[in-house]
Parts: sequence; C-alpha cells; structure tokens
Amino acid sequence: MIVAVTGCAGFIGSNLVDRLLDFGYVVTGIDNFSTGQKRFLSQALLNPRFKLIEIDLLNLDGLKVALKDCEIVFHLAANADVRFGTDHPHKDLEQNTIATFNVLEAIRSNGIKKIVFSSTGSVYGESPVIPTPEDGPFPIQTSLYGASKAACEGLISAYCEGFGIQSWIFRFVSILGERYTHGHIFDFYQKLKNNPSYLPVLGNGKQRKSYLYIQDCIDAIMLAIQKSGEKVNIFNLGVSDYVEVNDSISWICQELAVSPRLDYSGGDRGWIGDNPFIFLDTNKIQSLGWKPKLGIREGVIKTVEYLRANEWVFVSRR
Amino acid sequence: MIVAVTGCAGFIGSNLVDRLLDFGYVVTGIDNFSTGQKRFLSQALLNPRFKLIEIDLLNLDGLKVALKDCEIVFHLAANADVRFGTDHPHKDLEQNTIATFNVLEAIRSNGIKKIVFSSTGSVYGESPVIPTPEDGPFPIQTSLYGASKAACEGLISAYCEGFGIQSWIFRFVSILGERYTHGHIFDFYQKLKNNPSYLPVLGNGKQRKSYLYIQDCIDAIMLAIQKSGEKVNIFNLGVSDYVEVNDSISWICQELAVSPRLDYSGGDRGWIGDNPFIFLDTNKIQSLGWKPKLGIREGVIKTVEYLRANEWVFVSRR
Repeated sequence: MIVAVTGCAGFIGSNLVDRLLDFGYVVTGIDNFSTGQKRFLSQALLNPRFKLIEIDLLNLDGLKVALKDCEIVFHLAANADVRFGTDHPHKDLEQNTIATFNVLEAIRSNGIKKIVFSSTGSVYGESPVIPTPEDGPFPIQTSLYGASKAACEGLISAYCEGFGIQSWIFRFVSILGERYTHGHIFDFYQKLKNNPSYLPVLGNGKQRKSYLYIQDCIDAIMLAIQKSGEKVNIFNLGVSDYVEVNDSISWICQELAVSPRLDYSGGDRGWIGDNPFIFLDTNKIQSLGWKPKLGIREGVIKTVEYLRANEWVFVSRR
Repeated sequence: MIVAVTGCAGFIGSNLVDRLLDFGYVVTGIDNFSTGQKRFLSQALLNPRFKLIEIDLLNLDGLKVALKDCEIVFHLAANADVRFGTDHPHKDLEQNTIATFNVLEAIRSNGIKKIVFSSTGSVYGESPVIPTPEDGPFPIQTSLYGASKAACEGLISAYCEGFGIQSWIFRFVSILGERYTHGHIFDFYQKLKNNPSYLPVLGNGKQRKSYLYIQDCIDAIMLAIQKSGEKVNIFNLGVSDYVEVNDSISWICQELAVSPRLDYSGGDRGWIGDNPFIFLDTNKIQSLGWKPKLGIREGVIKTVEYLRANEWVFVSRR
C-alpha cells in the first residue's frame, strides 16, 4: 500500500514518515521545502520504500500526478505560523485553505478514499468550555491560522459527504519533541543562547497551554485510523493537563542551567489572537485505549535536549 | 455615509439596496452579474444616491478602489447554489471563501471598520440540536456551500480580532419573496408551467425546512446592526416553525390551481448534502424586539405571486 505524506519534511511530517516506513508502508513524501528540512528525511531518503516529490501544493496538476496510486493521504503541509498571521493574511488562505482544497481535488481525481488531516486546537478560538471537547460550542475564530484550519476541516467533511471519502481529523495542542523547530521553546532557547541573562516574554507568562510529545501524537494518529471507522472522525490530541508559560520557562532554564531576568511584555495574551488558555478534552481518543507516555515537563525537556544536540536548526530557519 | 453592498443585483442584495436608499444612505452597489439581474436595480439606478460598480470580487485591486470612502460593507455576493456544489467544487471556494477574503482585504486596506455578512443555516451541517442555536455544537460540514460559508465566517471573525473590525453575521434559513429567483419554489413553478399535470420531487417530500420572508429578513438585519454592538455579532434569521416540502408543494399548486401527479425520487434527502431538517433557534434576534410579519405559508404565496407577475426571471436565468 502506498501512502502519501504532505509536509513530509516538517516536524510532525518527517516523524510520521519514519513511523510509516517502520510499519512497512511504501511512502510518497511531498514537500515544497518552504519550511521543511531535508535533514529530517536523512533516514527516509536511504529507504527504497520512500520517494520524495518536491512540489508545491498550489500546483494542482503536479499534485494529481504525485498522488497517483496512493491509498491514503496524510495531509500535514501547512503554514503553521499562528503568531504572525496578521502580517500576511493571504498565507493561511493559500497554504492552508487553498492547498487543502487542492489535496482534496487530487484525492478525488485519483479515486483515493482516505485522508488524514492535522488540524489544531486553535479551531476552537477562545472556547467558553474548558477542557474543550470535539463537539464544544460553535467556535468564533480568533486567529487567521485557526480560521484557515477550520476552513480545511469544513472542506474535508464536505468532500467526505459529497464524494464518499473517509477522513480522520486531529486537533492538536502544541506538539513537542525531536525535530521541533517552531514555537515558544524554540524562541526561548534561541534567545537564551544569545543572552543567557535576559529573556523577553510575550504577555504575562501566565498563559495556560497544553502540549503533547511527538511520538505520543503519532501513536494516537495510527491508533485512531485503525480503530475509528466513521465517515468523519475527529479527535482532540493532547495530555490531560496544562502548564503556564512560566512553568515551561523554568524547566527550560533549569535544563540550560541559566537564570535570566524575565522581561514580560504584559497582558494576558502574547500577541493578537493568542489564546490565553488552551486545554482540550481528550476523552474521545483515550476511550480508544491511547494514553500519552510523556507528560508536558518531560516533553519540554526532551525538546530542549533535541535543540541542544541539533543547533543547526537555528541556522537554517528564519 | 456611504455603504457598499456586494451582490447588489441579487435577490437579497437588491432588496437591501432599495431599503438602504429609502433610509437615505449613499449606496455603492457591486455586482459581476454572474447571476444578478439589472432589472432588480431599475429603481435604484434612477436614484442619484446609488452608484453601480460592475466588478468581480476576485479582482482585489479593483475592489479596493470600489470600496474607497465606504463606512460599512454588506457582503452578500456569493455562489448560493447549494445543490450543485459537487459538480464544481472550485465555485464555492472561489466565489465564497476567496471572494470574502478579498472583501476583507479591501476593507482592511481602506480602513473600513464594519462588515455585514449573509451566512446560512447550512453552516450547521446536520446539527444534532434542533432548533439549532447560534452556539450549537461544533458543526461537521455536509455541503461545499455550507463549508465555504463557514470558512467565510471564520475569516471575518479572525479579521475582527486581528484588525479591529466589527461584524454582523446572519445565518439565514431560505429566504422567500419578491425577486426570489433560486430554490425549490422557483424550480417547482418552472416545472408546473411546463407541465401542470406532473411534478418530479427530489427526495420523499418530507424534508422539513424553514423559510423567511425577504422584508422580515431585512428588518432583522437593520435592527441587529443598530442594537447589537459586540465585536462579532452572530444571529440566526428564520421563523419559529418549519414546513415539509409537501406543504410547500400543496400551497404552490393551490395558488396555481393545478393538481399534478407527484413523482418522488425517494429517500430522505433531495440530493447529496441536502439537510432533511433545517430549523434554527431565533430567540437571539427575537430578544432584540424583532418578529417576522409573515409566516411561511404567506411567504410561499407571495413568492408564487411574484413569479407569476415576473415570468421574465425564468427566461433570463439558467
């Protein structure tokens, strides 16, 4: 069976590719390398069952050819930049909404019947219900990123209804672990490396967020695909607790053995559209028998360890 | 104050233009006449306070110029074709999602701070909660039309959060009345005109739907804009009951004095993505003091009367 992974050179995508290859699948990896890293695919590229196709998802004709003979598409490619959405609103529209439309069109034209999609807890906006379940109140979007991912979910569900496709949609909290190259630990690490005695923090540091370790995330995805057979299968993925940004900072500092002066920008949000409290109800995925193996603190420490061993990621990004 | 109406030559748009002109506003009407009718604007075009700009919303540069000096944009332009969405999936993406993105970009670049948007009860998919309130469960989209309108809502809300814009989003049931040129009464009327003794009906005729008369709809919009001042204001618009398609058929036949043989295609849905039961909770808009003046039966009869007096609409459409 050939499976395709879009965004195969990204943080989550490349870890998923490695897992799928371990499982014995033939994998077509698709990436435009706008943010992906070829080094993340170094193992995969040595595997005869992996084929890399360098293509942009906005190229629909090319995509249709690339997905030929695939049976399932893991669509992970995205603009994952939540914070700077308002600087370039077209980016979320193009790289998330329109790119997902193209993936669906390519799936349809190839007669593919299964799609797996990486969505986000950001689709809930600032939910009045916390922890937020999958069927929580109709959300009001607060970020262009969340809005674009919600739009993708809607497109996928409508295609499932209209064209007999089956989907698995995963709403992630922030993911941590090996190949993490985007988010607050990345930013804090980079700043502390430049100046170990001073750390600017967006907001008041009391934003409450939840995190999940990458291998636990992939375990959950693989389990849900096996065990859940509805037309549209939607799962929150996260752990059963949350931490404050300040907790995260203290673990990072401890791990790096630094004691910076913390300089808060103030306010309960780090930026426009920042959600001060993200905590998802994960009972649905847990009811399938999944449990995360690592807690948030262990995930943060694993991430710091990864960054320390792979400082090249700071050179090649941004 | 200059107000703009996109889709100004459409069913709802042209009625809204007339109302806004009655109220004394200076109105910029925008339409690409893909489905709009210049005859709907015959009164407006004689009014010195009305300016028609013929432009496609996919032309962002032109749109930016067209919205110069406007203070509020009523964005009604859309592909309103629910039923044939799967025949041309790109249409909802382009004419709804991307067009709305362009309207928002033009609003932002002109420093406009208010947008009014015509959404739809279809954004609820097949809600498990009926009558469905505005904050009903996170919907799973079942039509490309609903998905695209939900995507528009998400974009609008995210722009409100990101750029300090205020929005009024109205989720309509089907609208009836003068200038109605799209939907089941239009189709039934046309078929009965061709053959008064035979009427094919999609589904089993037991689909339950709710309808609202156009002038009641516009009353509600104008009231909500005046009375509701949140950042994002979302209202269901409909009446407090629903009818079966069969009820509607009997009123139409009575009005036309015909007794056709009814030929049902069968099943509880008229087409893929057809929602067999649409009924919105309208307590929120009613709490502002609005009540519909016409019931569903009166709306259906008004619509048949309009079509009878304006059979030209059948010639110029489709």
